[in-house]
Amino acid sequence: MNQVPTQDDLLLAHERIKTYVHQTSVMTSGSIDTIAGCQIFFKCENFQKIGAFKARGAMNAVLNLSEEERKKGVATHSSGNHAQALARAARIMGVKAYIVMPRTAPDIKKKGVRAFGGEITECEPTLEARESTLAKVIAETGATEIHPFNNYDVMAGQATAAIELFDETEDLDFLLVPVGGGGLLSGTLLAAKYFSPKTKVIAGEPEGADDTYRSIQSGKIEKSQANSVADGLLTSLGDKTFPLIKEMVNEVITVSDKEIIEAMRLIWERVKIIVEPSCAVPFAAVLKEKEKFSGKRVGIILSGGNVDLERAFKLFESIS
Amino acid sequence: MNQVPTQDDLLLAHERIKTYVHQTSVMTSGSIDTIAGCQIFFKCENFQKIGAFKARGAMNAVLNLSEEERKKGVATHSSGNHAQALARAARIMGVKAYIVMPRTAPDIKKKGVRAFGGEITECEPTLEARESTLAKVIAETGATEIHPFNNYDVMAGQATAAIELFDETEDLDFLLVPVGGGGLLSGTLLAAKYFSPKTKVIAGEPEGADDTYRSIQSGKIEKSQANSVADGLLTSLGDKTFPLIKEMVNEVITVSDKEIIEAMRLIWERVKIIVEPSCAVPFAAVLKEKEKFSGKRVGIILSGGNVDLERAFKLFESIS
Repeated sequence: MNQVPTQDDLLLAHERIKTYVHQTSVMTSGSIDTIAGCQIFFKCENFQKIGAFKARGAMNAVLNLSEEERKKGVATHSSGNHAQALARAARIMGVKAYIVMPRTAPDIKKKGVRAFGGEITECEPTLEARESTLAKVIAETGATEIHPFNNYDVMAGQATAAIELFDETEDLDFLLVPVGGGGLLSGTLLAAKYFSPKTKVIAGEPEGADDTYRSIQSGKIEKSQANSVADGLLTSLGDKTFPLIKEMVNEVITVSDKEIIEAMRLIWERVKIIVEPSCAVPFAAVLKEKEKFSGKRVGIILSGGNVDLERAFKLFESIS
Repeated sequence: MNQVPTQDDLLLAHERIKTYVHQTSVMTSGSIDTIAGCQIFFKCENFQKIGAFKARGAMNAVLNLSEEERKKGVATHSSGNHAQALARAARIMGVKAYIVMPRTAPDIKKKGVRAFGGEITECEPTLEARESTLAKVIAETGATEIHPFNNYDVMAGQATAAIELFDETEDLDFLLVPVGGGGLLSGTLLAAKYFSPKTKVIAGEPEGADDTYRSIQSGKIEKSQANSVADGLLTSLGDKTFPLIKEMVNEVITVSDKEIIEAMRLIWERVKIIVEPSCAVPFAAVLKEKEKFSGKRVGIILSGGNVDLERAFKLFESIS
């Protein structure tokens, strides 16, 4: 797709991928609502295939490949969930997946990619190394790049989580999602525009990677400092996601690592589900600005649950 | 109720409590099925009110009190989930709850009782101390004892988890539950007898508290050694639960603490949900006897999710 997805594109994406992904449940918790002072509806993408919403976008992108493209495979660089998502989508369609991953990516995510038959090329953990390694892989294989977020097919796929949430939960005053590269946020903004225009979409972002917040201030794409426990949100925006976010997002709320870990712990303890640090950012944003959300109906897309337990335990210890 | 609950009693219990408890979701996981070699349907009582199935039985018992009994309150001894469940049910009905708890009970469970306005009397962590302290409390207050499991109203309430699972998931070959005092197991056996007679009910029990296994062998109630990480399953059977279990249970599978912790970790990592050690016992039993369940449709009631995260982390460390 070479242009911003339309309402029809989003509906088609949902139709196309729904055999291959979970329609995840929406969870509520009395004790969470008491703590937050509002009614929260968690869309549980931590229960999604590969443990994250990224299964949606990757699936939609692979399903949209031409026959010629399928033969040569797909490629991407990703530190985590998109890597697994693309490997899985490719395997389902019988397509090869070439994944460039920083050598520092969590083991659980590398294992996930290999389990789906993805071919990993490791590189140094810098954007430059990732891009040059990927360029080399593509030159050698002729694979089609499926960018983790700066891709309209991926964006349309990610939008389907919000479509389902609007379907199941009426009259949301707010919908919060985390922002890294902006694929989920852009898709969610489009879904809200087309299907629930009264819902205000707010992004949660780590203070140590607050490039979206700064980009909106400055009017141009700013670089992420990439310094946060929320390891899924360290990337900067792309030229396809930034304009949509700039135009439509209601607000970006930034939160500290301590606030993220506290929010993550509350979700583990009260909702009894496992979420990764990046996933806790929007809930941390609600807790930080309680007055804004007081008494409202607030949707939150819980983006993923892929976290090494040992790492989570260390994070909890670090704030206790 | 003074006799074994009938089919009608179970249906009435379900009708009576359903406004006050969650109809919990049933979760499946492709990777869990691959590991176990069968199709597993997890009935998620870890998402139940107070984080455990015990909310069901206690609610049914309190709803069945006479007006006179309500005035004097309810009392019990419990090391954990039943304590919170009874305090909650009592608060909903405006009844006082007197809870005798061993001083060694997990903090998270004491806090839970106090949050529902329950009045805690602490005692030494022995059955004798618990019973004598409770007798004293009842003598002073005139409260009605609601036993955690040796009570037909409680049993009928616990049966409702299986009723819902049978409703949502047809043709289960097996249904596994953990056994401590036998309230959930007895209720589940009755539910299967009345509503899904083809389903074989199997109990999972810790090796270090294998009194149910031994009681069935010997034909009389044996005492639990009470030596397991599964702290919700340390009690012995009662004179109301034992005869039902002896008559109807298909098999009791015992598992080691290491097997319990490994199963618990798998559920955390693969299903992305938090379960307490006792709750992982039936899944550990399936993993231990894979051949028996190979290719079958297997229901498991995930009994609860109340575990201090620090304690869980230490358990995982202990087997790594």
